Amino acid sequence: MLYFSDQELDAFLLEDAYRGDLTTRTLGINKHMGKMVFKRKHAGRVAGIEIAKALLIKLGLQPIVHIEDGEDVAPNTVLIEVEGKAEQLHMGWKAVQLVLEWSCGVAQYTAGIVAQVKSINPHAIIACTRKSIPGTRKLATAAVLAGGGHIHRSGLSETILVFTNHRNLCAEPNNFKQQISQLRQQAPENKITVEADTLDHVAAILKGAPDIIQLDKFTIEQVKQSIIQLAQSGLPTILSVAGGINISNAKQYAQTGVNLFITSAPYYAEPEDIKVIITPI
Amino acid sequence: MLYFSDQELDAFLLEDAYRGDLTTRTLGINKHMGKMVFKRKHAGRVAGIEIAKALLIKLGLQPIVHIEDGEDVAPNTVLIEVEGKAEQLHMGWKAVQLVLEWSCGVAQYTAGIVAQVKSINPHAIIACTRKSIPGTRKLATAAVLAGGGHIHRSGLSETILVFTNHRNLCAEPNNFKQQISQLRQQAPENKITVEADTLDHVAAILKGAPDIIQLDKFTIEQVKQSIIQLAQSGLPTILSVAGGINISNAKQYAQTGVNLFITSAPYYAEPEDIKVIITPI
Amino acid sequence: MLYFSDQELDAFLLEDAYRGDLTTRTLGINKHMGKMVFKRKHAGRVAGIEIAKALLIKLGLQPIVHIEDGEDVAPNTVLIEVEGKAEQLHMGWKAVQLVLEWSCGVAQYTAGIVAQVKSINPHAIIACTRKSIPGTRKLATAAVLAGGGHIHRSGLSETILVFTNHRNLCAEPNNFKQQISQLRQQAPENKITVEADTLDHVAAILKGAPDIIQLDKFTIEQVKQSIIQLAQSGLPTILSVAGGINISNAKQYAQTGVNLFITSAPYYAEPEDIKVIITPI
Amino acid sequence: MLYFSDQELDAFLLEDAYRGDLTTRTLGINKHMGKMVFKRKHAGRVAGIEIAKALLIKLGLQPIVHIEDGEDVAPNTVLIEVEGKAEQLHMGWKAVQLVLEWSCGVAQYTAGIVAQVKSINPHAIIACTRKSIPGTRKLATAAVLAGGGHIHRSGLSETILVFTNHRNLCAEPNNFKQQISQLRQQAPENKITVEADTLDHVAAILKGAPDIIQLDKFTIEQVKQSIIQLAQSGLPTILSVAGGINISNAKQYAQTGVNLFITSAPYYAEPEDIKVIITPI
Amino acid sequence: MLYFSDQELDAFLLEDAYRGDLTTRTLGINKHMGKMVFKRKHAGRVAGIEIAKALLIKLGLQPIVHIEDGEDVAPNTVLIEVEGKAEQLHMGWKAVQLVLEWSCGVAQYTAGIVAQVKSINPHAIIACTRKSIPGTRKLATAAVLAGGGHIHRSGLSETILVFTNHRNLCAEPNNFKQQISQLRQQAPENKITVEADTLDHVAAILKGAPDIIQLDKFTIEQVKQSIIQLAQSGLPTILSVAGGINISNAKQYAQTGVNLFITSAPYYAEPEDIKVIITPI
Amino acid sequence: MLYFSDQELDAFLLEDAYRGDLTTRTLGINKHMGKMVFKRKHAGRVAGIEIAKALLIKLGLQPIVHIEDGEDVAPNTVLIEVEGKAEQLHMGWKAVQLVLEWSCGVAQYTAGIVAQVKSINPHAIIACTRKSIPGTRKLATAAVLAGGGHIHRSGLSETILVFTNHRNLCAEPNNFKQQISQLRQQAPENKITVEADTLDHVAAILKGAPDIIQLDKFTIEQVKQSIIQLAQSGLPTILSVAGGINISNAKQYAQTGVNLFITSAPYYAEPEDIKVIITPI
Repeated sequence: MLYFSDQELDAFLLEDAYRGDLTTRTLGINKHMGKMVFKRKHAGRVAGIEIAKALLIKLGLQPIVHIEDGEDVAPNTVLIEVEGKAEQLHMGWKAVQLVLEWSCGVAQYTAGIVAQVKSINPHAIIACTRKSIPGTRKLATAAVLAGGGHIHRSGLSETILVFTNHRNLCAEPNNFKQQISQLRQQAPENKITVEADTLDHVAAILKGAPDIIQLDKFTIEQVKQSIIQLAQSGLPTILSVAGGINISNAKQYAQTGVNLFITSAPYYAEPEDIKVIITPI
Repeated sequence: MLYFSDQELDAFLLEDAYRGDLTTRTLGINKHMGKMVFKRKHAGRVAGIEIAKALLIKLGLQPIVHIEDGEDVAPNTVLIEVEGKAEQLHMGWKAVQLVLEWSCGVAQYTAGIVAQVKSINPHAIIACTRKSIPGTRKLATAAVLAGGGHIHRSGLSETILVFTNHRNLCAEPNNFKQQISQLRQQAPENKITVEADTLDHVAAILKGAPDIIQLDKFTIEQVKQSIIQLAQSGLPTILSVAGGINISNAKQYAQTGVNLFITSAPYYAEPEDIKVIITPI
Repeated sequence: MLYFSDQELDAFLLEDAYRGDLTTRTLGINKHMGKMVFKRKHAGRVAGIEIAKALLIKLGLQPIVHIEDGEDVAPNTVLIEVEGKAEQLHMGWKAVQLVLEWSCGVAQYTAGIVAQVKSINPHAIIACTRKSIPGTRKLATAAVLAGGGHIHRSGLSETILVFTNHRNLCAEPNNFKQQISQLRQQAPENKITVEADTLDHVAAILKGAPDIIQLDKFTIEQVKQSIIQLAQSGLPTILSVAGGINISNAKQYAQTGVNLFITSAPYYAEPEDIKVIITPI
Repeated sequence: MLYFSDQELDAFLLEDAYRGDLTTRTLGINKHMGKMVFKRKHAGRVAGIEIAKALLIKLGLQPIVHIEDGEDVAPNTVLIEVEGKAEQLHMGWKAVQLVLEWSCGVAQYTAGIVAQVKSINPHAIIACTRKSIPGTRKLATAAVLAGGGHIHRSGLSETILVFTNHRNLCAEPNNFKQQISQLRQQAPENKITVEADTLDHVAAILKGAPDIIQLDKFTIEQVKQSIIQLAQSGLPTILSVAGGINISNAKQYAQTGVNLFITSAPYYAEPEDIKVIITPI
Repeated sequence: MLYFSDQELDAFLLEDAYRGDLTTRTLGINKHMGKMVFKRKHAGRVAGIEIAKALLIKLGLQPIVHIEDGEDVAPNTVLIEVEGKAEQLHMGWKAVQLVLEWSCGVAQYTAGIVAQVKSINPHAIIACTRKSIPGTRKLATAAVLAGGGHIHRSGLSETILVFTNHRNLCAEPNNFKQQISQLRQQAPENKITVEADTLDHVAAILKGAPDIIQLDKFTIEQVKQSIIQLAQSGLPTILSVAGGINISNAKQYAQTGVNLFITSAPYYAEPEDIKVIITPI
Repeated sequence: MLYFSDQELDAFLLEDAYRGDLTTRTLGINKHMGKMVFKRKHAGRVAGIEIAKALLIKLGLQPIVHIEDGEDVAPNTVLIEVEGKAEQLHMGWKAVQLVLEWSCGVAQYTAGIVAQVKSINPHAIIACTRKSIPGTRKLATAAVLAGGGHIHRSGLSETILVFTNHRNLCAEPNNFKQQISQLRQQAPENKITVEADTLDHVAAILKGAPDIIQLDKFTIEQVKQSIIQLAQSGLPTILSVAGGINISNAKQYAQTGVNLFITSAPYYAEPEDIKVIITPI
């Protein structure tokens, strides 16, 4: 459960329906009573339910929720149904549908890629990055969790991850050992992760013995060589793989033996189809 | 130009960097001066520049902007460069990159689909729908415009579009003529658009002589038949095509002679790659 | 129904009662239970009820609402009654009263001017402009609708209305035909409205065959001449009249045969008197 | 000077131009450069300038301001001029115009009623109430001050004013003496004001010797009798007159000798005409 | 009762739990049901209850509240108990605990200092200043009131208090008489308070006969001399004592006969210990 | 550098000066020009400068800043000076002073306690907790960093810390080994910290080999015994000490050999005295 503030929820509603539904009003059906049903067209993982529910409640409605985030459903399963006035239903229709479609799409993709890597290693982890679509970080987080994924970092402020763009501004950019040593001492409560752009980086970084080396855009062959380098070092450092991991290649990467995968692919998944049907009551 | 409020801009910054960059701080390089450059890796359409600039200014930086929204650039073109303290640069890096990557992706796709339909009819129009990713409506609008697209409807409150979900709550759901007549009289300043789900709907709707019939999820063959029906009616009604229009099929739809295409495909385009390089100065 | 965000509602409450009612507190009656009744002093149209109700609920109260927006009531009709602690009642009193007084005032005026024009033409429409009091657009919209009025444009972003201030920046400011032609092609989903400041403008604009010509500050005589010009053109263009239309002259304008009236007069109507009586229980 | 938060300023802009000016965009004149001039049509008092300036700056413009709040100008005086792109100018036009028109209207009325009472007593004071239009309290405050008026109470939280609606919830509603005594002791830093609805109230309230008795909806004759009652009491209590005071009767009330007038009339003044002309540069 | 907006309440929740409790989630106990109990460890005054309750309700919980703000409780009294899912309880734990601990601390200190001065003079008043911790003014206000204190000034905008920093910018900084006379005339609804930094100031200020002289950082001896000066003047002016008043010296100051004490000491009180225990149900 | 949103900054300004300074206005000195100087009365660590500067800029002023956050200054050092109109200066005075006083107080205390532990172990770290004053988390973070402290956890969402309140809801509350194992596998990018309430806990937790054991409210003797237990285990686990650590006892705790101290003591430090002097120019 993520807590969405009233401001966050209102933004979802008002970006679409800032001054009501002109069509409903002009047709003169504002007060006609109806029932609105949200169905997931295809089978799969559900997400966005809590937010959808909260949005409908804010419109003065009392939704009946049939499914929780993280469940898998059969095709055409009714997720939510709600009764009310046409003006309430039409104000909520699209905002709720968009939350469900996008959230289910992200969750579906996440569940898929998680299944891929777990088929190789049941302990493998898909952790999603900060590279989300602007303004959607929190919604994306909820959907990734519903898909069985993890969050790599919520943001900049609580975890340590050294990029080349950091090192470039250090007095000695390639002195990984010194950098890791400083981080180790200054951040005893955090794991120290360093991103490697090349195999040479891996060798150099291992000298500093970080907790994690994040291999960025490595080929499978390069990952294998990194594993060998790590084995030779005898260190307890973990390797993670990032950059270009997606549902088509995750399994192959998992077969290398790495079991921590950093990806933003789920954020760009196709939205799932949610049918919305309004009928009179 | 769309105006983004300070709250909207701050939300982009703070979803990532709510309490600064721990890594920069822990490395002790906060005050080291650097230069940050944003490059579009591949050739194509640019978007998100105004917002990117505004975000960097909010961080106390003075960005130099080389390109405007809506321009096409060669591969590896520098879009923005900016100098400042490491702590400023690292707080802005990802938020700005995400805006540029996603905006350029949407704009690129839009420009592509616009080119497809204009190759058939220079007056054809791609108009994007309300079916955007939650929380991104305004950012998406800016990107679609930069791509040469139009906005179908910003929201519910100023245009008339009758869906089956509206008609279901009318006393006579299939009395299109009465509905259109009522709308015509009650909304003299708006065009009246009615969505048709089937060819039978088209015939029935034409009896009401709306301004536009929006053909939802029609095959090309069905569109052709709709055109014939319209021609037989002798009405000045316009046809638009919606539902499933994308860069792969837009040209074929355009060949039917319709020139108004309603789509949400650009919102789900792959983000473009924006390289961000920070170097010392 | 317009949806008001929590931020919008809280602003109404807190602009008056940001840190409670000092008088209630100092009298030591905070927890005394009372009943607060809101009565419309004079007969007439009611508006603001939904917002009033939402405000009282936010204060932890359970208001009983007797009337809906858009109804007409007899003098001294109780609109809302609510029981609670003195500290709750006194925090809500003025904020709620102001919403009701102002909303009823706008709705009353709107209902009056609507009645004027409908007495001549039952299909005539009063549509209110963007010229509202700063910060009140949404509240005003709700009140106008309760008064039986329409909204001319909610804002700038979804409708087309060409002012002289637009044309002045065009390459050929007086080439209405070219402007309308461009708009027609670029905005196929919108009606094209052009404002005319003079009779000469009307003649020139008609060459472009827009959907609507908005006659700004025309005398009744000028309106009549415009109607003749339009008739001679044989075009299906609609005329609307704007600028200076109010409850005293609307009927005369309606007698010209025009039936679309654009006005901001209701926004500046006198507020209606709402009596608020608090008694012990 | 009142400080307006970015949220308050953005609300003024976005209630009108939430996603830009469709007309400017569709005409293809977004980037055309223009000059926008704001002129006060009639002579009189100016207000709203600081906010207008802040709004234009937020749009990226650099306004030239010729007049300060509180000054009186001749007819057709240019208040502000500003150059920029059409898309910037058209987004600011109406929001700024509305602020100026309404603020000048309130200030003008305030200046007028102040002049009325000061013609009788140079020390007379017009103090405006909390009975403002919802959502406009702060804007109204700035305009009243520019008009030479005072603010009666900004809100509930810092001043003491006992209404019948307070007294009704006291153990002894008509025991003014006890109420005033309690207030006097519990709020030594505040003046104690009690509202009188009748002449009998005045007599009863005087027994408690408050700082101020606010005469609500008293006729001039009743005010005169109240003055006599006060004189007979020998108390230093001040009388203020509230309820129905406006520009037509204020002078007559001032002639009674009272010099503190509480009114909300300026809030409902007609807006002043501000001409906005955009020309190419 | 102070009304807290949804934005204010959400800020309390989200500054701690912006994207949920990672520990609860990682342990896999999100949906485990539990009961959370808040106990005040030591005996004393309770505050913060209303806000605590509101926060828990926002998390979807139904708290049972045993105590109201302003009551005194025995050690280990349960203030609030609430049942729900682990993910809800852990998101609310710290935010609610912090509100209670800090509020009770402020209220406890306030109650203590109030008791000190009332032991000398039952009518003595402790009024807290604007010198609160940034961002806590409203929370502090609620806690001070629960402690039996008063609020000296909520802010700048409704009361008159002349500091040396004001006088320095007057044409004649030491002409208290002229300043007070101007304030008296221009602000008939306010008491006029002037701050004295020295005994000489007191003598000079008395010439203007203000309502209150606020003695800033006066020793007890200086206060006594001020009382003598005041007595000699024969004026009804009140003295208040400000600057350095705290629980250790308030009683001594009260013994001088002054009974209005202005202090910020409660804001910096130690927070009270609130035990939070979560157990399974 | 922490980025404060406009909403955060505006809240600091408006909680004090929501509608301007009535005293300045009533004295008629609004437009008088003055200079305002902020001096730190005592020697010590400076914090809050960036926010203070941002607040003054928002008021339209151009502050001159002499010192950066984190520097130590001599008594009576001028931190900031700024010139402007009386109405601007008086609106900023208290809001800025409060930020500086409180921030400097927190930073000063932090610097003091850091010095205590570093005198024993130069690598010792003071890390401040989530137990901040409600609404001040971000301001406190900036001040702690300026004082040379670290942040233990910004919030709940990115680090793992198991409390008894978590374990109570696990199937086997005392099965630390299982809990740690699950966390280790599910959160490979995080250090696993478990809080121990007793020495028995320490023994049991060590079986799970977490990264850190946080000793809550341990006496120095208990800490020593924990160190022995840890040494006997041969594990690389780190010990941290939390609960009751303050400037009086930190050194003694440091002498045990632990070098990670978790405390909230700085948040409750006395504010530092900042003198604010306004003079005419």
